[in-house]
Amino acid sequence: MPQVVDLTKALIAAESVTPARGEVFDVLAQTLAVAGFEIDRFTVGEEPDGPVENMIALRPGTRTHLAFAGHLDVVPPGDGWTSGAFAPEVRGDLLHGRGAVDMKGAIAAFTAAAARVEGPTLSLLITGDEEGPAIYGTRAIIDRMAERGLRPDLCLVGEPTSDQRLGDTIKIGRRGSVNLWIDVPGKQGHVAYPQLVDNPIPKLVAALAAIDAIVLDHGNDWFQPSNIEVTDVTVGNPATNVIPAKASARLSIRFNDEQRGEDLVDLIERTVALHAPEATVIARISGEAFLTEPGPLSTLVADAIAAVTGVTPALSTTGGTSDARFLSQLCPTVEFGLVNATMHKTDEAVAIADLETLTDIYADIIARVAHG
Amino acid sequence: MPQVVDLTKALIAAESVTPARGEVFDVLAQTLAVAGFEIDRFTVGEEPDGPVENMIALRPGTRTHLAFAGHLDVVPPGDGWTSGAFAPEVRGDLLHGRGAVDMKGAIAAFTAAAARVEGPTLSLLITGDEEGPAIYGTRAIIDRMAERGLRPDLCLVGEPTSDQRLGDTIKIGRRGSVNLWIDVPGKQGHVAYPQLVDNPIPKLVAALAAIDAIVLDHGNDWFQPSNIEVTDVTVGNPATNVIPAKASARLSIRFNDEQRGEDLVDLIERTVALHAPEATVIARISGEAFLTEPGPLSTLVADAIAAVTGVTPALSTTGGTSDARFLSQLCPTVEFGLVNATMHKTDEAVAIADLETLTDIYADIIARVAHG
Repeated sequence: MPQVVDLTKALIAAESVTPARGEVFDVLAQTLAVAGFEIDRFTVGEEPDGPVENMIALRPGTRTHLAFAGHLDVVPPGDGWTSGAFAPEVRGDLLHGRGAVDMKGAIAAFTAAAARVEGPTLSLLITGDEEGPAIYGTRAIIDRMAERGLRPDLCLVGEPTSDQRLGDTIKIGRRGSVNLWIDVPGKQGHVAYPQLVDNPIPKLVAALAAIDAIVLDHGNDWFQPSNIEVTDVTVGNPATNVIPAKASARLSIRFNDEQRGEDLVDLIERTVALHAPEATVIARISGEAFLTEPGPLSTLVADAIAAVTGVTPALSTTGGTSDARFLSQLCPTVEFGLVNATMHKTDEAVAIADLETLTDIYADIIARVAHG
Repeated sequence: MPQVVDLTKALIAAESVTPARGEVFDVLAQTLAVAGFEIDRFTVGEEPDGPVENMIALRPGTRTHLAFAGHLDVVPPGDGWTSGAFAPEVRGDLLHGRGAVDMKGAIAAFTAAAARVEGPTLSLLITGDEEGPAIYGTRAIIDRMAERGLRPDLCLVGEPTSDQRLGDTIKIGRRGSVNLWIDVPGKQGHVAYPQLVDNPIPKLVAALAAIDAIVLDHGNDWFQPSNIEVTDVTVGNPATNVIPAKASARLSIRFNDEQRGEDLVDLIERTVALHAPEATVIARISGEAFLTEPGPLSTLVADAIAAVTGVTPALSTTGGTSDARFLSQLCPTVEFGLVNATMHKTDEAVAIADLETLTDIYADIIARVAHG
């Protein structure tokens, strides 16, 4: 049976900056095959957002199908590491390396748990692109499952949701996210002759002031209010005596389950058009909001956490987007994993004890599903 | 007696990109000395805005003191000239060279006119820095005149005010100009956690919207309305998921004689403070507005133009700032000179005939002052 720490080390050592494929999948697939999983690996997509490798590992069992979702790609390490980002090293109580908590450690823990506990149908849905554009990642896995007639009953995403200590937070939802780019054209000219020119800045300012006045909602039991932020304004005019030809702004909207991305884009487009009819608005919806209302799945996970650690987890919907936004369209989905303090940072590290405890919790979850 | 065309050529040949000193002053001083002027040359200022050479040439006469003001510095030539920018060349009816119309030609014309007509006390107030920061230019000349107890009764600035043909426009005023830089500080952070950050953009947008709503005045008989333009907005935030730490904007205000620069700065500061209390505002007043109400001086100049050319000049206050803003504090001041179509451009050129005609007009002005 694989040891969770050894497997985490082996996964870290297989360098896999997003998008990932190849060696890191070999390491995981070999271990899962030994644990009785059928391995389905497939690579999809073209440059620049691909190719991306994905894997569906399935071990048929009784009754309920529990899917565990995760990603083997990691964000770039950056500079300043004490030891090599892809040379896993234990110092004191911690195992250091890029991906230790986000989220090779959790994948190793679930793999070790699955090797220990049998019963329900288990699948591991593993993508090589969660940290990147995610065009050919979990979406492609969902398509592949549909082709194969696979549909999980419950989904657990192994993202590092714990905040201060392992087990303190489960995520039952996430806000959606949309970015928008606004370009207002004008007519350049000398500032001494305003009648001959068309300054785009006042139009953009009026549009942004109107956008800033929008109240989307007041939040609800499970979400904070949806929020629009203007994150950039660009004119780029070095000349004090020239009225510029263009003014641009960028918005970022994080929204709860009372909003839909398309509706928000439409609202922004209409607001901008009122003040700057010639403006163009480009939108990119990164993901819709999702919520798995507290119920059997979150209770089951919380009970397993409490049984192993004594901690009662909070149910949260904060933070950025994750692949749970896609999986929640299939079945009840929650996220639970390691402490996220060092994710995406230099000297990312996981407590050795947490890897062992997370394996115990995941094993308890599998056992509860088997008896559920 | 100097020929106006020869003197213009000699002045062009003495390269004098702003700030100017030395040779070009030598050329003019020698000619003026021959015409009976006492020459007072002085150099003031330090790097980076100096040193600048200035000259007061004075020929005492009877009664009224008429000052002619001009500058021997020129803007950089840039590329693409047909002949050398500092190699004066006659092609057809035109004399080409940097400074031909702005404003070595007018200085040569007044010098030739002064050599021809005697009578009033005449001075030429010639600076080497009108095109640059103008810190050590005409302001220093005014200080020097005060020290010497010199105060003109009338001032004629030889800037190229003519629009379509020589004589069609006299400037009797200019708008003032002030540029302002607004910086709004904020607190940077992740867009998913707006409660932990402080986005400076909405504050700047609110301030700019309020500024855009300001109506300073409606203009008057001699001026168009004062005008505020936002000429730049800068955030410079490349990350879609980050709320930025600073947002900046730049304003340019062109204002008529109903406004004062300091009052405008105060108005902008108060408006910004309402919406962004932490903001800083930096202002640079380039010049106050001035107006010499139509009266004896403008009538005298217009009559001279009409007598020589048959053209009735329009009295205008349009365009950018000039050194008339300083001189108008001493005495009635108007501006009249060559056709400005090629000023600051490649292949700047003056019509030979215009140089001769302008000399005739300036001579007629001197004669009218003598008999006035």
